Amino acid sequence: METQNPAEPRVVIIGAGFGGLEAAKHLGGKPVCVTVIDRTNYHLFQPLLYQVATAALSPADIAAPIRGILGKYENIEVILGEAQSIDVARRVVRTMEREIPYDYLILATGSRHSYFGHDEWEKLAPGLKSLEDAVEIRRRILMAFEFAEKTEDPAARAAAMNFVIIGGGPTGVEMAGAIAEIARETLAKDFRHIDPSKSRVILVEGGDRVLAGFPEDLSASALKQLQALRVEVRTGVHAENLTDAGLEVAGEFIPCRVKIWAAGNAASFVGKTLGVPVDHAGRVLVQDDLTIPGHREVQVIGDLANFTSAKDGKPLPGVSPVAIQQGHHAARNILHMIAGAEPQRFYYWDKGSMATIGRNKAVADLNIVHFSGFPAWLAWLFIHVLYLVGFRNRIAVLFQWAWAYVTFNKGARLITRNFQAEQRPLG
Amino acid sequence: METQNPAEPRVVIIGAGFGGLEAAKHLGGKPVCVTVIDRTNYHLFQPLLYQVATAALSPADIAAPIRGILGKYENIEVILGEAQSIDVARRVVRTMEREIPYDYLILATGSRHSYFGHDEWEKLAPGLKSLEDAVEIRRRILMAFEFAEKTEDPAARAAAMNFVIIGGGPTGVEMAGAIAEIARETLAKDFRHIDPSKSRVILVEGGDRVLAGFPEDLSASALKQLQALRVEVRTGVHAENLTDAGLEVAGEFIPCRVKIWAAGNAASFVGKTLGVPVDHAGRVLVQDDLTIPGHREVQVIGDLANFTSAKDGKPLPGVSPVAIQQGHHAARNILHMIAGAEPQRFYYWDKGSMATIGRNKAVADLNIVHFSGFPAWLAWLFIHVLYLVGFRNRIAVLFQWAWAYVTFNKGARLITRNFQAEQRPLG
Repeated sequence: METQNPAEPRVVIIGAGFGGLEAAKHLGGKPVCVTVIDRTNYHLFQPLLYQVATAALSPADIAAPIRGILGKYENIEVILGEAQSIDVARRVVRTMEREIPYDYLILATGSRHSYFGHDEWEKLAPGLKSLEDAVEIRRRILMAFEFAEKTEDPAARAAAMNFVIIGGGPTGVEMAGAIAEIARETLAKDFRHIDPSKSRVILVEGGDRVLAGFPEDLSASALKQLQALRVEVRTGVHAENLTDAGLEVAGEFIPCRVKIWAAGNAASFVGKTLGVPVDHAGRVLVQDDLTIPGHREVQVIGDLANFTSAKDGKPLPGVSPVAIQQGHHAARNILHMIAGAEPQRFYYWDKGSMATIGRNKAVADLNIVHFSGFPAWLAWLFIHVLYLVGFRNRIAVLFQWAWAYVTFNKGARLITRNFQAEQRPLG
Repeated sequence: METQNPAEPRVVIIGAGFGGLEAAKHLGGKPVCVTVIDRTNYHLFQPLLYQVATAALSPADIAAPIRGILGKYENIEVILGEAQSIDVARRVVRTMEREIPYDYLILATGSRHSYFGHDEWEKLAPGLKSLEDAVEIRRRILMAFEFAEKTEDPAARAAAMNFVIIGGGPTGVEMAGAIAEIARETLAKDFRHIDPSKSRVILVEGGDRVLAGFPEDLSASALKQLQALRVEVRTGVHAENLTDAGLEVAGEFIPCRVKIWAAGNAASFVGKTLGVPVDHAGRVLVQDDLTIPGHREVQVIGDLANFTSAKDGKPLPGVSPVAIQQGHHAARNILHMIAGAEPQRFYYWDKGSMATIGRNKAVADLNIVHFSGFPAWLAWLFIHVLYLVGFRNRIAVLFQWAWAYVTFNKGARLITRNFQAEQRPLG
């Protein structure tokens, strides 16, 4: 109940992703009044979202109620709501319902997909950012097999068993590998009129290699591991002319029912309401202490921030370690400022990165050492379980993975209706 | 792949609930060609649906893919589809897409809620039959607390913290108990401006006692156990004048945001297309061998059947043991008929019934002995885990129950959008 002390500085954190949640936890129990605003009532462990989309995990396995995580901190209140804009002059956050004043603001609203001007493609090729996205993609994949089993039209059947993933970054590679595994193993015995193992999984990447953010040797290894799962990888080509029936790649029309978008991100619109410069993807150009020009009480972190280190002149990637470290730093900066000191410069400690491709298949770049295959997959497994928020989820996920590993089964193969399904039935 | 022998008799089973699935399993590996038709791709363990609605379990915990269960039987094919009608003269099932011929038919399409002529109440007070229903009810319950936390209008806040359940059968009692537990324990520390433990949970029952299908001593015990959870039980009164703002009970208007319907069932419409007599609830009046008059190749089982034993002249209740035993019997009847014998009379073996009210709270009627409280709850737990379809789900559910029991926590407190939410935002 009412336990916040109104005399203390008011900190508002918008977004309870990796960055916002880390900042909130660090401010828990400190002499500040914290308000966390999020559009959903849960923190989502996005790195495992592709496993919900491919029926290996349930939504609740990778989502933890924000109130449950922060409930123990009496100085933190949580509001389910959506920030519309920030009035930096008056120091208020505007939601649909009211204005929320702040003394310090941490903006961590993240990003959505970008269709590079082709917004009409979103319905044809959904991206993977939210639980709703994941459930919709899962439904489309499973429905494609159901349709192929039922139809008597060979062309329609072939199109239903072609899966195209657009974008060869970590999400695209993970989705391609997971769909190939479902088709080749999980569903192998489920049908009578089709052989799911004959599905084609096609990964389209505009650049010259998959996992372009990784060192070249790991890209090459990822390509080999994808090919071992019979994923067809096409690099240096772009998806064009998306329709219900398929898409064009390098002049060739590929008939396909299920298309998945993993090609681009655009920062949340809230960043643009700050009135400071943003980059081409809508990310706020933050200063080296994460604050924005002219307003040291406003910090922007995570996917919404363009933090460019002087060293290589490139912005930090939109990955969870960056968001977590920035969330921690932003919280510390606020405590510094309250104590009368200046906000401090942010340094990113890059511990490396990894991507998984499938069972026993992954790549890991730990800076000093690169590895791939089974050891990389084990490392990936270990790190992801370690970082999963909430002890319960960790056990539940471990159990389901162990089960799937032993049985080649996926437990969450449910086709559930949702609003998109109702509005635009496939087929 | 194509493994059915077209020379063998064709058995069509419509509905993969408890009855249909049991019949299919019994026919697996027998010299018949079996086609199972269901509207969803999963078998739903309906007795635990209220736990999804009250955030204790995830949809995937109580649903198992039908193809996964039946995939090992090469003589069974599964079709995702919806039967529109049965042409008993031509012996075909009509779906939206095609006609499916049969030599033997088992009709097991179950029931939905009935609003006794007030269909407009369905949106105001959803019932609990499908996973979509459960997720929608979960969303409404959790959103009510979120709304109460945010609103500054004391009347609206009070209305959001009143929960009315209409119907005092097993589902109504289970929902009332579970909501009371969430409010009093799970959410106790989650909010800053409201005290969820002060929520009112009101159970409205038109008859003179809750659990009218149970012996009177167990109804009295259930009432006591509900009262221990501070559920307000009102018997002998009916819900009237449902609106968004609340409902009227015995002339008193109860303002409440969340209303849940657990008051009545109506059999699936498919039964009416058989052209044989149905009862007031739309259930098909079956003969004592489960066949319909004039068509011994058509059997109707489970919630869709009105099977009245000569002994007490009452129809068997719509519970899973009846459906399972009838499914088994129907499959045996078909094998008998193929062997040239007559279908046999069905006898129900009533092993008793139980209902749970909450943590350590339940009632059990094992015919020769009645018990309640902790021993009944343990028995309930044991039986439900035993009957949960699929080994994986059994472990997952046990784990989540153990976790919830120790921590008083519920893991699946997610508010996710679905089509109903999109069409009619609660506000």
